[in-house]
Amino acid sequence: MQVRGRGFYRLTKLEDALERLLSGVKPLGEESVQLEEALDRVLASDIVAERDSPPFDRAAMDGFAVRGENTFGAGEGNPIYFKVVGEVLTGQRFNGEVGDFQAVKITTGAPMPPGTNAVVMLEHVNELGDEIEVLKAVPPGKNVSLRGEDYRKGELLLGRGRVLHPQEIAILASLGISRVRVLRRPRVGIISTGDEIVEPGEELGEGQVYDINSFALAALCRSAGAVPVRLGVVRDEYGEIRRAVEGALNLDVVLISGATSVGKRDVVPEVVRELGEVVVHGIAMRPGEPAGFGYAGDTLIFMLPGYPVASIVAFEALVRPALQKMQGMRAFVPYPAVRARLRRKIASELGRRDFVRVRLVSTDSGLEAEPIRTSGSGIVSSLVRGDGFVVVPENTEGVEKGEWVEVRLFRLEEFLSLFNTSPEK
Amino acid sequence: MQVRGRGFYRLTKLEDALERLLSGVKPLGEESVQLEEALDRVLASDIVAERDSPPFDRAAMDGFAVRGENTFGAGEGNPIYFKVVGEVLTGQRFNGEVGDFQAVKITTGAPMPPGTNAVVMLEHVNELGDEIEVLKAVPPGKNVSLRGEDYRKGELLLGRGRVLHPQEIAILASLGISRVRVLRRPRVGIISTGDEIVEPGEELGEGQVYDINSFALAALCRSAGAVPVRLGVVRDEYGEIRRAVEGALNLDVVLISGATSVGKRDVVPEVVRELGEVVVHGIAMRPGEPAGFGYAGDTLIFMLPGYPVASIVAFEALVRPALQKMQGMRAFVPYPAVRARLRRKIASELGRRDFVRVRLVSTDSGLEAEPIRTSGSGIVSSLVRGDGFVVVPENTEGVEKGEWVEVRLFRLEEFLSLFNTSPEK
Repeated sequence: MQVRGRGFYRLTKLEDALERLLSGVKPLGEESVQLEEALDRVLASDIVAERDSPPFDRAAMDGFAVRGENTFGAGEGNPIYFKVVGEVLTGQRFNGEVGDFQAVKITTGAPMPPGTNAVVMLEHVNELGDEIEVLKAVPPGKNVSLRGEDYRKGELLLGRGRVLHPQEIAILASLGISRVRVLRRPRVGIISTGDEIVEPGEELGEGQVYDINSFALAALCRSAGAVPVRLGVVRDEYGEIRRAVEGALNLDVVLISGATSVGKRDVVPEVVRELGEVVVHGIAMRPGEPAGFGYAGDTLIFMLPGYPVASIVAFEALVRPALQKMQGMRAFVPYPAVRARLRRKIASELGRRDFVRVRLVSTDSGLEAEPIRTSGSGIVSSLVRGDGFVVVPENTEGVEKGEWVEVRLFRLEEFLSLFNTSPEK
Repeated sequence: MQVRGRGFYRLTKLEDALERLLSGVKPLGEESVQLEEALDRVLASDIVAERDSPPFDRAAMDGFAVRGENTFGAGEGNPIYFKVVGEVLTGQRFNGEVGDFQAVKITTGAPMPPGTNAVVMLEHVNELGDEIEVLKAVPPGKNVSLRGEDYRKGELLLGRGRVLHPQEIAILASLGISRVRVLRRPRVGIISTGDEIVEPGEELGEGQVYDINSFALAALCRSAGAVPVRLGVVRDEYGEIRRAVEGALNLDVVLISGATSVGKRDVVPEVVRELGEVVVHGIAMRPGEPAGFGYAGDTLIFMLPGYPVASIVAFEALVRPALQKMQGMRAFVPYPAVRARLRRKIASELGRRDFVRVRLVSTDSGLEAEPIRTSGSGIVSSLVRGDGFVVVPENTEGVEKGEWVEVRLFRLEEFLSLFNTSPEK
């Protein structure tokens, strides 16, 4: 953590920083939520079926329940006759045994009457008063959902750590579960530092700029399932920053952006060191080099760069994986990739990981990625003019023009149209 | 909308149903929200820059501001000397003109002092009291973010209809915008019908099953940006269903599942016809054939199948696109695709669109998709055992074993690991 006046004494590789970070992060505690509120939460315990589903053999179609064996040989030109001995609707039960060449009219979802094992669909039946003509053979089991076909008592349906999408919510409802144990969401305090930073909505004085980071970071936290708590803007001053951090130590995580580099007003690392421990400061990535993390008590503190683009990249590279682990998920990047051909060389440095914003251009020969030129990571419009980013790994000095790269997309909705375009195209 | 006793008289193609649906759906009204609450909302108006950004030429690096021309010829072995005439920190402004071979110490983000046009990075300077040695030439403009580089006054930055991701939130904050005009979220009433349906948490009687649809549909609504209002379970009875629908006509949309087919207890289409108009009922898709939609007053009413899988598929095929259009988005499917080779033939019918759940298997020769065998769309576990679905279009009778298909993934997080795997792999 020693620094020279001119820059970081030693930069940690992102991979190593991430390993040190994640080895110290544990999943948070559990809580119980209503099923209606469980979307996107993470299961805290295994879900095992307490009964068979369906709990009884049931009709999978509207029609007539019969003994399948009795229908063998039936056809359009060769009807087989069955006597209709009753009807069973969904939610009811047929009492009594059904014999050979007898049929019970049945609704989808209703329990199969005792003695029957197949359903002839309405389409293959002529109804003649209390008799039917069956025009198609149905083997035993046809159009029937057997007891336990969906799942059997004792079966593991969803494991701890599973993210609850609508499909998982459906399964939980089918089990009769109205409250779910899930992992607690991380509560994240967000502090922006900088004498020149002003809250949006206020008047901008000379030399001042609006606070971008706390809004962008709060939105990123939400997108990662965490609960952001914006703690406002503090001046680049040791005492004020220290008070702000101390006031946030009841939270799981603190993100503090700005004043994290090695200039004389970059006092955040000093504050963290005084309150606890700086684990990593200075990472071999661009943008985002001044990023780092440490602890004060049990609170994980991220030091993020002041420039918004760098701050967002550092969030994706470090903070999101930590928030995911706290929620019991494995680390993943929520930006699907498309492949594109590079329109212009990207230069990088050996040993450093670069995140380069690109614009996608659709050409006759496929998608092309145009790196966006900026004077640095203070240029926020590159995030909305760009379509995504390319990662240049540590083991290369760059990517040549014409090479294929994977572009991680910022805005999925612009690339996934309705059931006919895939992101590969 | 005429039906025979045995099934739908005529099925509408999904494409045609969707066209009729979307031609009747208009974006909802606008509302104003705090920037902190604007994530994932849709902009209701264009956002035009009201000033240049940066509002002044500013340093993009820590270092010394100089006239770039004065540094030409400088190198490690050939330092050029500059007199340090002051310092300017971020948020301050340097008063006075800087002359030839004069330098002002400057912090990233600070305004460039008048007379200077480039920044020499600290790394390329030796500080000697009130003088510096410059060891590297910097052309004019180097390490400077010029006024307006990010965006210029009058420039369109975000258009109406843009979804507000964290990046867009960042741009809005940079403009000083603390409240945003966005499109209103659709309010969606959700009704489950069925005499056999019981609320999760209650005791299950004989022949009964838990309500799955209203929970799954509520979760899907949320995932589509809508506000679900669960209205509970009603019995398969005309009066009760009619009262439930009438009570929901203050909402933008009503989803009613079950009792939508053509059996004698399938009274939902009748209720909708009495209260307004059935536009489409019966769609050439599987699962989901009994789906349809209509209007009662200004409320869009979707009739969805009773079986959960069919109901979810019908939501994705019809309801989500309508909810997206109400919010001013174009229709898109939020499930990215991977390509996989089919492990077993899928049979389909010409003229029908099939949605087939599959499990992905990773083999030495790449991903393979295994269609999941079930007795129908009552088998909810197929949603959580499956990894995604394959769409079989209308113009084919199926897909042969060994063919390549696109699998739409249910759970992104299982396929996107950390910056090193793309969904194509």
